[in-house]
Amino acid sequence: MYTMAEHIVTGFDEELNRLTARIARMGGLVEVMVADAIKAVKMRDSVLAQSVIERDQEVNALQVLIDEDAMRIFALRNPMATDLRRVIGAIKVATDLERVGDLAEGIARRALTINDGEALALAKGVHRMGKLVKAQLKMALDALLADDTIKAKHVWIGDNDVDEMYDSLFRELLTYMMEDPRTISSSTSLLFAAKNLERIGDHATNIAETVYFISEGSVLTLDAAYDTSDD
Amino acid sequence: MYTMAEHIVTGFDEELNRLTARIARMGGLVEVMVADAIKAVKMRDSVLAQSVIERDQEVNALQVLIDEDAMRIFALRNPMATDLRRVIGAIKVATDLERVGDLAEGIARRALTINDGEALALAKGVHRMGKLVKAQLKMALDALLADDTIKAKHVWIGDNDVDEMYDSLFRELLTYMMEDPRTISSSTSLLFAAKNLERIGDHATNIAETVYFISEGSVLTLDAAYDTSDD
Repeated sequence: MYTMAEHIVTGFDEELNRLTARIARMGGLVEVMVADAIKAVKMRDSVLAQSVIERDQEVNALQVLIDEDAMRIFALRNPMATDLRRVIGAIKVATDLERVGDLAEGIARRALTINDGEALALAKGVHRMGKLVKAQLKMALDALLADDTIKAKHVWIGDNDVDEMYDSLFRELLTYMMEDPRTISSSTSLLFAAKNLERIGDHATNIAETVYFISEGSVLTLDAAYDTSDD
Repeated sequence: MYTMAEHIVTGFDEELNRLTARIARMGGLVEVMVADAIKAVKMRDSVLAQSVIERDQEVNALQVLIDEDAMRIFALRNPMATDLRRVIGAIKVATDLERVGDLAEGIARRALTINDGEALALAKGVHRMGKLVKAQLKMALDALLADDTIKAKHVWIGDNDVDEMYDSLFRELLTYMMEDPRTISSSTSLLFAAKNLERIGDHATNIAETVYFISEGSVLTLDAAYDTSDD
């Protein structure tokens, strides 16, 4: 049962909720951009790649709105403690999501080049890596919207798998190019697509660190990530 | 002649000055890391490359301190207008500089691989691009410390040259690899070093945008960058 007081939504609450809603929307857009960019590589779909490229503007515009919202809250509300960290966290996460949008756009641009050449067997490896990175990004956004530091730690630890997958894909692609120099141009594009995925993984990790910072007020370290005493 | 009032430094001023000093120090460290990483590629100096890699920790630690300073100012001082934008600007610039440190570290790691192979003629091209990017980063930091929006606009416009240089280097390196597949491994490392430089250029542009935002309270757009009516 709700008391009367709980029904009264203050202007500040409304503003914080709007900020969260914008971050959630930006996260959703970016998640789909990443998924579609990976799909454009796998399915050799240049029309889909083009649509990913076009969507990046919307993501950039959302970052500007989130920054403006955060500025207004700082100026008018003087937020403290957790609220303060939440607003700073919004600025940080919006910066990461904007970069993820750029990186997805980059993958889509590479897809256009890759699709110009012959199909490459290693595109499957990039798709596999893409699935892992997509899952990391989703978990980071889930952690953010639920203030879930345990999920945040899982993302942080999971980034090692992304890095390992990237390193092995990198070596395979180099071998492939040396064996068949005609594939150098499209293999290089595939290499950059993989590198962008690896960096999207880094941004998912940054978001996880921000989730931890909002809840705990301190920096997520190696020891803290592996400390499951509060799991 | 100074009046008494001008001699009284408030706690808030001190805090803002300390924040600026930390950003300046972080900028200086990162500038030298970029310069040394480029030098390590040009001079095939793996010892220097190793020292760049080791310095990245110091940069990361500074970002944490700057974030903490900014948090304290928000919580205790409730900054308004330009002061508010200055503190948010510090958080944004620290994020960019931390990434530039990572990218310089990345170039240094590539240098280690490049130095394992034969010397490549195109290392000169990367060095030339490096000089341009270094100049862009320096101008962005100068603009920041002097609140100079005109310099900020120059950085913004100058990023086109960086992108063009990268695109032509990219094409040359691909051709080089196709002509001599034995160079694929070190050429790919050189390609990634060039890509990191291009991204350092992007971060210099971000810093320039932040300088404009701090002074003007609005986002730097194409029209504004080419508007020299206030130059």
